[in-house]
Formats: sequence, C-alpha cells, structure tokens
Amino acid sequence: MNKIEHIGIAVKDIEESNSLFKSLLGKAHYKIEDVESEGVKTSFFQCGPNKIELLQATNDESPIAKFIEKKGEGIHHMAFAVDDIEAEIERLTNEGFTMIHTQPKRGADNKLIAFLHPKSTNGVLIELCQDINKGLKIL
Amino acid sequence: MNKIEHIGIAVKDIEESNSLFKSLLGKAHYKIEDVESEGVKTSFFQCGPNKIELLQATNDESPIAKFIEKKGEGIHHMAFAVDDIEAEIERLTNEGFTMIHTQPKRGADNKLIAFLHPKSTNGVLIELCQDINKGLKIL
Repeated sequence: MNKIEHIGIAVKDIEESNSLFKSLLGKAHYKIEDVESEGVKTSFFQCGPNKIELLQATNDESPIAKFIEKKGEGIHHMAFAVDDIEAEIERLTNEGFTMIHTQPKRGADNKLIAFLHPKSTNGVLIELCQDINKGLKIL
Repeated sequence: MNKIEHIGIAVKDIEESNSLFKSLLGKAHYKIEDVESEGVKTSFFQCGPNKIELLQATNDESPIAKFIEKKGEGIHHMAFAVDDIEAEIERLTNEGFTMIHTQPKRGADNKLIAFLHPKSTNGVLIELCQDINKGLKIL
C-alpha cells in the first residue's frame, strides 16, 4: 500500500457537491467520468498526492443508491494505491482478508481495481488501485 | 488543503484492529496515544504521505462510542493537512461552512485541529490539521 489513492464519497447531486468541494478544497474537479457498469457518475478532485472521488448513482440499483438509502451521504470507501494489484490480492487473501473481487477489474480514472469486503476490515470498504499503464498485460 | 493527513476509523477493540491493519498495510502502527479530553485511545499507521488513525472509545460518553452505537465500526472522519489552520477556519467560514471548532484545539499526534460540521459537507466529518510546530504562537 503506497498511499491513500482516493476517498470515495457518496453524494445525491454531483453538481451541487462539485461546487461544495470546490469551495472546500480551493480548486475545481479535474474530471467527470461515468462508470456505467457500476451505475455511477464520478467526479475527481486532486488534493496534493491524494484524490477525492464524488459518486452519484445513475440508477436505483447502483451500489451508491443503496448506500445513500441505508446510511445517507458520506464516505463510501477508501482506496489505496498499489504497484501490483494481483500480487496484493494474493497477499491479502493469504492474510485472511475477504476479497469482493479476486481478479482486478477496470475502474474509473484509468485504474485496475479490486475491493475488499468490509466484514473483514472493521466495516471499512477498501479498494486497491493500480494505474492501468502498469497492468497492460492483463487488459 | 495540502493532502489527506489521515483517515480516522472507529473501532471497538484497538488491539485487534492494530493487528488487522498491520496485516492490511504491511507494517505496524508507530504510535498509541490517549486523548483524554475526547475519551479516545488512538493508534497511528503511516501509509506513504498519509496516515490511518484508529480510534477506540475509552468511556461511554466518547463521540466514538456514540458513533459505533449508531453506525457500527467504520470510517469516522477525514483529515486534511493545512499550513495555517486559523486562516483556513476563516476562509471556510467565509465560504459558508459550519465549523464545530471556530478556534484550533490540541489534537493527537502533535496537531492543532478543528472540525467542520458534517451537515455542511455532504455528511462527511472533516478535520483540519496543522503541525503544532507551525503554530507555536497560539499554544
């Protein structure tokens, strides 16, 4: 785990939240990206070495829609940057953690990603992120 | 906001969670610190430029005890590093954010801190952190 890559925040209205986080962080988002497979629209802000990812559901079946229905707006997940996501999945599995994804998948912002199940991590939904240009062999 | 200084995670048993996060991050915590005024025991892990702070309640009136009772274990707050916490409090107040602390107070890990109210930040409890050695004038 090299650093916190980003913090994912579930929001109801990404336009309103873009404005709010622009005021908070003192700079605007650098990217909007739809992730159709997850039913989310995302928005990214840079904050030094880290990012903030806002997530708005684009349909009622989206994990973000269900999260907000259950818990309200707020921090949805924490993502760590890793160099080799396949090696990290194997290491964490051997350490006894439960992976939601046992193989990396494509995520937003040019990343290969895999989530750990929060039941094995003190209720925290944790994502692993590897830059896609480091993982061309498995695309 | 220079970077994410740390992510605060509410846990029930800090000893068990120290072991869990050691396995997750691949290295042990570097510090345990009691913050009596907040009724918490804290544990810090370094992760590149960022930290993970585990928080266990030390009494039933602790904000962490109330958080876990209401929401269960999980991410409690997100902290940003700032150079001048007083200037940042003033800037954010002028931007319309609601500060829980309108003056900085002493926090764990040699920081001056102030929290924003989550009602003004999409349900996210946000902390500002300034290194104490940058703020000697107000100690």
